[in-house]
Amino acid sequence: MLTCNKERLQDKITTFSKFGDTGKGGITRLSLSPAALEAREEFCKRCKALGMEIKTDDMANIYATIPGEEKLPAIMMGSHADSVKQGGNYDGILGVLTGLEVAETIVTEKIAHKHPITVVIWTNEEGARFEPAMMSSGVITGKFDKDVMLASKDTEGVTFKEALEASGYMGKIENRMNPEKYRALVELHVEQGPVLEDEKIDIGVVEGVCGMINYEFTFTGQADHAGTTPMKYRKDALYAAVKTIQYLHDELDKLDSKLVYTTGKISAHPNIHTVIPDYVKFTLDARHQDPEVINQVLEIIKAIPKVVEKCEASYEKAWSRNTVHFYSEFVDYVEKNAKEFGYSTKRMYSGPGHDAQFITDIIPTTMIFVPSEKGHSHCEKEFTPLENCLKGANVLLKTILDIDNN
Amino acid sequence: MLTCNKERLQDKITTFSKFGDTGKGGITRLSLSPAALEAREEFCKRCKALGMEIKTDDMANIYATIPGEEKLPAIMMGSHADSVKQGGNYDGILGVLTGLEVAETIVTEKIAHKHPITVVIWTNEEGARFEPAMMSSGVITGKFDKDVMLASKDTEGVTFKEALEASGYMGKIENRMNPEKYRALVELHVEQGPVLEDEKIDIGVVEGVCGMINYEFTFTGQADHAGTTPMKYRKDALYAAVKTIQYLHDELDKLDSKLVYTTGKISAHPNIHTVIPDYVKFTLDARHQDPEVINQVLEIIKAIPKVVEKCEASYEKAWSRNTVHFYSEFVDYVEKNAKEFGYSTKRMYSGPGHDAQFITDIIPTTMIFVPSEKGHSHCEKEFTPLENCLKGANVLLKTILDIDNN
Repeated sequence: MLTCNKERLQDKITTFSKFGDTGKGGITRLSLSPAALEAREEFCKRCKALGMEIKTDDMANIYATIPGEEKLPAIMMGSHADSVKQGGNYDGILGVLTGLEVAETIVTEKIAHKHPITVVIWTNEEGARFEPAMMSSGVITGKFDKDVMLASKDTEGVTFKEALEASGYMGKIENRMNPEKYRALVELHVEQGPVLEDEKIDIGVVEGVCGMINYEFTFTGQADHAGTTPMKYRKDALYAAVKTIQYLHDELDKLDSKLVYTTGKISAHPNIHTVIPDYVKFTLDARHQDPEVINQVLEIIKAIPKVVEKCEASYEKAWSRNTVHFYSEFVDYVEKNAKEFGYSTKRMYSGPGHDAQFITDIIPTTMIFVPSEKGHSHCEKEFTPLENCLKGANVLLKTILDIDNN
Repeated sequence: MLTCNKERLQDKITTFSKFGDTGKGGITRLSLSPAALEAREEFCKRCKALGMEIKTDDMANIYATIPGEEKLPAIMMGSHADSVKQGGNYDGILGVLTGLEVAETIVTEKIAHKHPITVVIWTNEEGARFEPAMMSSGVITGKFDKDVMLASKDTEGVTFKEALEASGYMGKIENRMNPEKYRALVELHVEQGPVLEDEKIDIGVVEGVCGMINYEFTFTGQADHAGTTPMKYRKDALYAAVKTIQYLHDELDKLDSKLVYTTGKISAHPNIHTVIPDYVKFTLDARHQDPEVINQVLEIIKAIPKVVEKCEASYEKAWSRNTVHFYSEFVDYVEKNAKEFGYSTKRMYSGPGHDAQFITDIIPTTMIFVPSEKGHSHCEKEFTPLENCLKGANVLLKTILDIDNN
């Protein structure tokens, strides 16, 4: 069975790990930074060498295309090439490099295909330099207002617009991905969680992206002196928060075991060891693919009393996102192809967001996950063994060709 | 029965509330600041007008003395004149002003007394500008190393030594309080807690200062992505901390009802809503007059497992202080005198520290508490009704005269 080339894929990963190399096993390759532009340049150079035609759109998304035998919309692969600060060599870029390897295999093996085949780099997926994340896929799918995005500033005060214009990659708005020109997107990505590795699974068959809610809770008590206020007089906002976090754990643990929820952020005021806290805030992030389970989470939140341990309790939604379901035919292709290669598979929903979740609103889309060692991501320890990267590339190759044939 | 003068006391409180006036009902009168020097100047002016002799020692503590009829050590009253940032008009200064009012009553009423009678201002009790608190009573009683104190810097980089030298109040080391020159100290202070007001008590008969312990707890888990890490894989340091705070509440609530304990400070790392916290720290402050109860608290701390919710749990003592017992004969005088005036009384231990707790190691000492409205202190809302201030002054006057007579 036709496969990608392990040595070539290794070379790609090694080469691109130089762009933004932190010297500690990872990279800092913020969107449109010099390191990111180096990576783009190397990508374009390699695509041109394969005879691909390169276009960029007004958000500097890069589309590198092998012509097809027929006049049909293109089939896309790819992901993003930017990283968070002190990130790793796999998140995003592996989707680009496996796409490039699939293109190289198709070109060098002279594999017949009717549709044009495109490798895409989406600009500023991480949102680590310019907020928000998934900015450019968001703009071209109508999720974000372009003018607002152009005004987004990095910590030095540089706007996204300025960085875009200086990059040399800003192209025409007509070059944007749209359903007339593109037939499909398959985005390969690292799982960013421990499940595939732990369960010894080769390929995550991604059915969609989990719906999520993010709430902020506030408890208002009374600041008093730790040494003078008998316990019975206290309105301790931290204790009220503690009681509520315990309640949330107790109740949320009764729901479906695939639910993940996190109290990641907490702050107390005035946060002095000798003062009873008067204000405490914490966040709850909860994710599940089934909207009914998210509704159950909301019911549990709504059942929090207005007064907890004599403190006023309130909460508000910071944001939410509905569950995204990928194109089921493509999901089935991924599963079938992995099995044909003899790889183990698991159907799963992505917890984190990806460009694919916006693109799927416009054209049929799916994703392929490969394991993340120990679940690490967004850090220098982020790692996926070459063998797993290759398996992902092989499934990607076969899936692109299946889409081409159907 | 001889009493102090209500109008005069009101005038003193009003006058001194101008020095450092925040315009919002309180004062910012950091130690040796211009506002604090204005208060010292007014104090000295008033003492001189009463014919008192003023000395200062090498820590700028001020001793203003009415001569006695016999060559005996002096009886001291007083407290501190500095405040925290945006503090109130009663904490510390009320002990100075009631002392001054007692002295004025003795002088104007020509009350016979064998011992010299001194009103004292201790320098830098709050430690709000130069750490630590109770600095100067600490130096003269051998608790703190003077050279270390002199090097203490404020936020602008000014050392305590520089502020001291510039103040004009630095005197001779021979002028320090010592048992040969001083017979007693009675410090009147606001309660800083809600008990006296709530129980409608006029005078707090202070038996001593509670022993306390302060511990810092650390929980070490694993930072992972909120969206990709199933609950069973998590090592959530915040949840481990929550469990432990609940355990501490459950167990500490079984101990004596006079125990006060506070988890005032908490921090989570990285404190991002989408990341499971890997490090969480919180503090526990616990206070009780009985060392046996403090030991029980320690036993409860020691019983915390080394691993809580798969996170490593550790703790260390930040500091502690043993219970201080005031001079019982003076404590009895305060109680007896309050009752003779027809005031209600309650024996109690102070939660916060005071200069008196250091001075009591050297000379017989006690304290008198007056109510704090709603328990507020160290804030602009700090308030004690004039009637209560006067009752305190009257008990102080009678107690000083009792000490003089015995």
